[in-house]
Amino acid sequence: MVAEKMYELGTKKSTIRTIFEFGRKRAAEVGEENVFDFSLGNPNVPTPEFVKQAVLDILGEMEPSAIHGYTIAPGNPEVREVLAKSINERFGTNFAGKNLFLTAGAAAAITISFKALCEPGDEFIAFAPFFPEYRCFVESVGGKLVVVPAKPEDFQIDFAAFEKCLTPQTKAVIVNSPNNPSGAVYSEETIKGLAEILRGKEKEYGHPIFIISDEPYREIAFEGYTVPYVPKYYANTLVCYSYSKSFSLPGERIGYIVVPDEIADFGKVYGAIAGAARVLTHVNAPSLWQLVIARCAGRPSDISTYVKNGQLLYQGLVDAGFKCVKPQGAFYLFPQSLEPDDYAFCERAKKYDLLLVPGTDFGCSGHFRVAYCIKTETIERSLPLFKKLAAEYAQ
Amino acid sequence: MVAEKMYELGTKKSTIRTIFEFGRKRAAEVGEENVFDFSLGNPNVPTPEFVKQAVLDILGEMEPSAIHGYTIAPGNPEVREVLAKSINERFGTNFAGKNLFLTAGAAAAITISFKALCEPGDEFIAFAPFFPEYRCFVESVGGKLVVVPAKPEDFQIDFAAFEKCLTPQTKAVIVNSPNNPSGAVYSEETIKGLAEILRGKEKEYGHPIFIISDEPYREIAFEGYTVPYVPKYYANTLVCYSYSKSFSLPGERIGYIVVPDEIADFGKVYGAIAGAARVLTHVNAPSLWQLVIARCAGRPSDISTYVKNGQLLYQGLVDAGFKCVKPQGAFYLFPQSLEPDDYAFCERAKKYDLLLVPGTDFGCSGHFRVAYCIKTETIERSLPLFKKLAAEYAQ
Repeated sequence: MVAEKMYELGTKKSTIRTIFEFGRKRAAEVGEENVFDFSLGNPNVPTPEFVKQAVLDILGEMEPSAIHGYTIAPGNPEVREVLAKSINERFGTNFAGKNLFLTAGAAAAITISFKALCEPGDEFIAFAPFFPEYRCFVESVGGKLVVVPAKPEDFQIDFAAFEKCLTPQTKAVIVNSPNNPSGAVYSEETIKGLAEILRGKEKEYGHPIFIISDEPYREIAFEGYTVPYVPKYYANTLVCYSYSKSFSLPGERIGYIVVPDEIADFGKVYGAIAGAARVLTHVNAPSLWQLVIARCAGRPSDISTYVKNGQLLYQGLVDAGFKCVKPQGAFYLFPQSLEPDDYAFCERAKKYDLLLVPGTDFGCSGHFRVAYCIKTETIERSLPLFKKLAAEYAQ
Repeated sequence: MVAEKMYELGTKKSTIRTIFEFGRKRAAEVGEENVFDFSLGNPNVPTPEFVKQAVLDILGEMEPSAIHGYTIAPGNPEVREVLAKSINERFGTNFAGKNLFLTAGAAAAITISFKALCEPGDEFIAFAPFFPEYRCFVESVGGKLVVVPAKPEDFQIDFAAFEKCLTPQTKAVIVNSPNNPSGAVYSEETIKGLAEILRGKEKEYGHPIFIISDEPYREIAFEGYTVPYVPKYYANTLVCYSYSKSFSLPGERIGYIVVPDEIADFGKVYGAIAGAARVLTHVNAPSLWQLVIARCAGRPSDISTYVKNGQLLYQGLVDAGFKCVKPQGAFYLFPQSLEPDDYAFCERAKKYDLLLVPGTDFGCSGHFRVAYCIKTETIERSLPLFKKLAAEYAQ
C-alpha cells in the first residue's frame, strides 16, 4: 500500500533516537541536570548576533518580493557572486557565482551531488568512521556505499585499505574533515596522498573519480590544525558546505555546492546537479537565508566553546584511562570503548546516565562518540562519572 | 560520467524559461514597460505586514537556538498543534499536530507523498490541464503519470474519461483546485462525484486509492466559489498545502502535508512520508518559517489584486473575441488559442510582446495560459494588443 522501503526508513528508530528517548525518560525521573546527553550533534553556541542583525537589516531595507520571492534554482546570482568572492579571498581560488549552487544545507548538497553523478552500478567510497546518513543517501540514489576501514591511531586515511576499495565502478569518494564522529582533521599530507592515488586511478580506469568534500565542520578546526581546501589539491572535487554549524543555523537549511571550472565537464556536472535538485524538490534554497549568508560572508564562527569543551573532555577522558585521538575539530571525540563490544559499553554507561553513541553506528566498532556541543558545566560534572565507569573495567 | 537523466532534467529549457529569456531580451530592446510577460506564476501581492511582524517578534522574543535549531523531521510539535487547530476551526475537521508533516513548500509535499506511496508499477492520475512538474516528480519516484483529458467547457472533471483511466495500478489521483493553469475551482459536485467513483474502485480493486490534493492556491478563490475541503468528502486524502501564494512566500519553502486519521493505515502512510522526506533530504522544513506560519495561522490572504486583475483580463479577452472560462481562483486564465496550434498562436502573440504559455505544456492543446499576477496597469495596457492579435485572426 505504501513504499515499504520508505516506511522502513521513516520509522526504524536510529540508535541516536533511542538514546534520545531514553534520555527524556531519565530526565523525567532524575532531573534534566542529572542526565549527560552526549548523543546529539546540535550546535550549542548561539547563532551570532550579526546573523540576527542581517535579518533585521534585510527586512528593513528590501521589498518583500525581493526577499521572499522565488530565486532561480541555483540561487540568487548576486549572492553567489558574493560567496564566490569570499571563498576566493580565503583560499586563493578563482570561482565566480556560476561555480556555486545554493542548497538546503549539506544533506541536500551531498545527496544532490550523489544523484547528479550516480549511474547504474556506481560505487561511492566513505572512510570509517562516517556519518551514517551517507549510506541512506547513497543507496537512495541507487549507488553502493563502499566503506574503507578506519585507521584508529589517528583517523587519517589508511591508503593501503583505500586502494583495495577502488574499482572501475568508483564514481566518487566522500571526504568529511573535520570529521563526524572522529573529530580528526585530514592533514595536507592526507589530502595530497588521496589526490595522488585518485589521479592514478582516473588514468588507469579512463574516467573521472570525484571527491565530494562534505564540509559542515570546516570552520570548527582548532589551533594547529588547518583544513586543506580540497579543490586546490584535486580538480574533480565538489565542495558541499553548510551554515548549520558555522553560524548555528541547522534548522534553516542553507548551504551550497562548489563546482570548480576545472572539474571534468563542468557543464555536464552543473547541469546534472540542477536536475538532481529539481527531482529532490529543492526548488530553491530558502530565499531570506540566501540573502543573510551573503551579508555575513567571511564573518568568523565563534568556536571558543568547542575548543574549551573539547580540551576539558579529552583531558578528563584520558585521565580516566580512555584512549582517544586529540580533538582537532568539529565537536566530537571518538574514544575506544573499554570493552570490544561498543554497544555493551554504551549500555553500561547508561547506569551513570552517560548517553554515548556506539562506534558501530559509524562503521567503526570498539569506539564510541561523545558530542561535546553541550554546556561546559555539564561536561565538568560528567567527568567523575566517566571515572567511575572506567573504574568498573579496571577491577 | 554523470546521470544523463539528471543532466537532461537540469538543462532542458522549459517553454516558460525560453519565454522568460525572450522577455528579458525584448525588455532590453523596447523597454521593460513594453513587454507584457504573462508567463510566470510568481505572486505579485506583497508579503503581508503581519508576516514581517511575526519574524520581528520571534527574533525579539525567542532564544536563537529555539528559532534556528533543528526541529524533529515532521516539524515543531507546537507549531503543528496550532496549525491543526486552525484547520479544524476553518473546516470542522478534527486534526491534531500528529496529522501534519511540515514540508519545504508544496513541491516537496506532493513529491514526498508520491515517493511515500509509490510501489513498482504504480500509476498516478492527473487531470489536464495540469502543472507540468507533476510528470517530472511522479516519474522521478518511479511512478507513471496517467493524464485524463480536459473538459474544456468548464475544466471540471470529465468523469467518463476519468473512469477509463482507473486501473488496478492506480495508486493516487492528483487534485489541484483552484487550478493551475485553468483558474477553475472544483465544485462540491465534482469532488463528490470523484469521491464516489474512487470509493467504488477501491472496493472493486481491493486496495486504497489516494487523493493527493495539491492546494497552493486554496486561499485564492473568488466570490461565489468555495473550495471543498477534500478530506471531508474522501477519507484517503493527503492535503498538500503551501504558503507560497497565500502569504507570498514562494522563496522560503514552507508548507505541510495533512494525513488524516481516517486514511487507510495512518501509521504506514505517515511513516512512509517520514522516510520519503528523509531520502529527499528535507531534514526539516525551514525552522524560522515554521514558527512564523504558526503565529500567522488563520490570518487572511489579500486576494483583492487577483480579483481585480482576473476580472479585467477576462472581460478584455472576451471583448476581443476570445473564448475563456470565467476566473474562479488562482491567478491564471486558460483561454482557447485562436488557431488549433497553440505554439504557433503564442509565437504570433510575441509580435505584440504578449508573452503567453502554450496549453500543450499543461497537457491541453488549443489553449494558452495567462498568469495575471502582475501589475493591473500592465494588464490594462495589454488589452488593446490582445485585440490587435485577435483582429489578425478575424481577417
